[in-house]
Amino acid sequence: MALIVHKYGGTSMGSAERIKNVAARVAKWHRAGHQIVVVPSAMAGETNRLIGLARAICERPDERELDAIAATGEQVSSGLLAIALRHLGVDARSYAGWQVPITTDSAYTKARIQNIDGKRVLNELGRGAVVIITGFQGVDDAGNITTLGRGGSDTSAVAIAAALGAKECLIYTDVDGVYTTDPRIVPEAKRLHVVSFEEMLEMASLGSKVLQLRSVEFAGKYRVPTRVLSSLTDPFMPLDIEMKSGTLITFEEDEKMEQAVVSGIAFNRDEAKITVLGVPDKPGIAFQILGPVAGANIDVDMIIQNQSVNGTTDFSFTVHRNEFAKTIEVLEHEVKKRIGAREIFGDTKVAKVSAVGIGMRSHVGIAALMFRTLAEEGINIQMISTSEIKISVIIDDKYMELAVRALHRAFDLDATNGRNGPHPENPAVAHAPPN
Amino acid sequence: MALIVHKYGGTSMGSAERIKNVAARVAKWHRAGHQIVVVPSAMAGETNRLIGLARAICERPDERELDAIAATGEQVSSGLLAIALRHLGVDARSYAGWQVPITTDSAYTKARIQNIDGKRVLNELGRGAVVIITGFQGVDDAGNITTLGRGGSDTSAVAIAAALGAKECLIYTDVDGVYTTDPRIVPEAKRLHVVSFEEMLEMASLGSKVLQLRSVEFAGKYRVPTRVLSSLTDPFMPLDIEMKSGTLITFEEDEKMEQAVVSGIAFNRDEAKITVLGVPDKPGIAFQILGPVAGANIDVDMIIQNQSVNGTTDFSFTVHRNEFAKTIEVLEHEVKKRIGAREIFGDTKVAKVSAVGIGMRSHVGIAALMFRTLAEEGINIQMISTSEIKISVIIDDKYMELAVRALHRAFDLDATNGRNGPHPENPAVAHAPPN
Repeated sequence: MALIVHKYGGTSMGSAERIKNVAARVAKWHRAGHQIVVVPSAMAGETNRLIGLARAICERPDERELDAIAATGEQVSSGLLAIALRHLGVDARSYAGWQVPITTDSAYTKARIQNIDGKRVLNELGRGAVVIITGFQGVDDAGNITTLGRGGSDTSAVAIAAALGAKECLIYTDVDGVYTTDPRIVPEAKRLHVVSFEEMLEMASLGSKVLQLRSVEFAGKYRVPTRVLSSLTDPFMPLDIEMKSGTLITFEEDEKMEQAVVSGIAFNRDEAKITVLGVPDKPGIAFQILGPVAGANIDVDMIIQNQSVNGTTDFSFTVHRNEFAKTIEVLEHEVKKRIGAREIFGDTKVAKVSAVGIGMRSHVGIAALMFRTLAEEGINIQMISTSEIKISVIIDDKYMELAVRALHRAFDLDATNGRNGPHPENPAVAHAPPN
Repeated sequence: MALIVHKYGGTSMGSAERIKNVAARVAKWHRAGHQIVVVPSAMAGETNRLIGLARAICERPDERELDAIAATGEQVSSGLLAIALRHLGVDARSYAGWQVPITTDSAYTKARIQNIDGKRVLNELGRGAVVIITGFQGVDDAGNITTLGRGGSDTSAVAIAAALGAKECLIYTDVDGVYTTDPRIVPEAKRLHVVSFEEMLEMASLGSKVLQLRSVEFAGKYRVPTRVLSSLTDPFMPLDIEMKSGTLITFEEDEKMEQAVVSGIAFNRDEAKITVLGVPDKPGIAFQILGPVAGANIDVDMIIQNQSVNGTTDFSFTVHRNEFAKTIEVLEHEVKKRIGAREIFGDTKVAKVSAVGIGMRSHVGIAALMFRTLAEEGINIQMISTSEIKISVIIDDKYMELAVRALHRAFDLDATNGRNGPHPENPAVAHAPPN
């Protein structure tokens, strides 16, 4: 018997039939003697619908109110799952973030979890109930509803697993694991049976939609064994097979992992590029530009400052596309005049493509192969950023698919190797087409 | 300057455009120097959509979970209204029932308000903000979300007005006041400028959809001056005209009110009739039948016990149609055998039609006129119930419209008199067609 946290994404919760399927799966785990906490996302499309309602009234709605509105999506799906479980004869109760409570800071629309009080939940588990906790949300010290930002339900699940000391956190989603890249773009993409925490961190931060970045950070910080697996398989499949399916995020690297130089190609179109032209090249200038941006609670990803010419330089960085307008506004009003910049401009039509792999550490020439591959396809590189286990480039977004396919082939990911391809123990799952 | 509570129904909150209209109206009141608390319903159709989701999973969903789901409708509409007000430059914040808090008992789907803590709200009003409070819901002592039942937002509004000592509670809805009957059924129906608390109580309990019964009870108990008026008029109409529009529910009866013998014809199709046949006629039998029904938290409306024949009698009563199946179940399992009843049967195809009027007290022959009118139309009366100011009959529901039209004419309500007809001061409102 173990305490296990299940997380189900929006597609898995997308209809009455799918919710019944989730309930059947949870009931199977519960009947096998496990203590189960379930963290559901809102039904697919619901969060967008809610935000759309707010935007129909005001282009930039008040964020406290937006959170109160958006948080209802998970309250509904959690209640529906409780109803479905009780219908199967399983005692189940849903709790909103504020009822647990899950305490966060007050940064509306991107709050951070500060504390999870597990007493009430453990009490319910102790008396044999399945506990359902709304993902994506919490409550601040003043009793206001907050949300954790897009994909926040993953973070909720991992944080709850950490707070309760769960044995494993199972992230059920509409794909059957983490792939070498998105199979919708590269049909030859292969599922990884195991991925290191660091690789997953890079993939998540680079836009692989499988897991939200902060959930991986949480998993790493608290060493929560986390598995990504499909909710679209037969809910009645034997538990021992299900327990080995999907992709396990591990904290121990082994030799086999080092063999694959690059384990995956990640990409996203969520970023926008901003350049501040003609910045005086003097100490503190980066802070003077990015300080107000951070102050407006905007996350910055890549940052590039070129060599100065004639005492001025150009400063570029990327932000989430949704924050592009806000960032430009902050720069125009709070930064431009103060630092004496010549011009501020940006581009939202960019994409980021990255090669990620633990093996990169011990191999040279990865960057060269990546740049040559892109050059051969005639793709211009606009920005470059590297870390120990990844190389990212910003390119014109119309070339994104082309770049991903070319790199997937160049790094030999189309071939089956030790970390990917059909799982010998579980061919049924490995062949399930990702949705 | 006064503290005023506004309540807006689902149709008034039915779209982004309508919510902007509500915001414009609230802003007008706020800018005139009033302290405004707004209690919105869920957007039209939303509560049904949410309950439909639950029912798609389970015919009789768990009521705690159903409440958590249904309560989200008002959380969304309240957030949207706050966004619309802030967009107009008016400081506004929304609060869910649990954030106020509005404390209720734990009778899910039909909870009763026990306490409203006005501190937080008065504090916000004091600093000049408009406060928006979700209607329809509260929180019990254990921190579970509860709802007050259909139309509960009216009750929320009146209860909040009472708790805060508001000067007036304005119930904005899609009709421009209380009519002598539903104008959709009788085009000659007239708007009443004033209605007594007792008449309103009877009309609400008899199914006039304008105001929920418990809200009228609250208004009466705490003597909250309550006005029903239209949200579909021009939001920028002068405040002094708007303040006199609609129908005022008053606690002082005047002579003019006594003149109209019957002030309105109310009706509903929400009830179902249940008969317990062959009940032994002995003391305590009514309690043995209705005790378990009340214990299952089912409200009973009309009750009739016939004269006994050969030591047994027949016992009939009505419940809400939604509770029909549950009531039959309770009777079959907990009552039938114990009391030795012969048979239990019921009918959901019934309607209740009532004549209501303060003037009835001092006039005879009202019942006779009512029964004669129905007989002349060939309508059979199945059950009769009377109070000091109303007479109700249960009939086959296919005759409901016919009965309402005939009675409206018989009691001379088609004619204009002192309490109805176009308002001389405000013809624009009086002519606005009810939606």
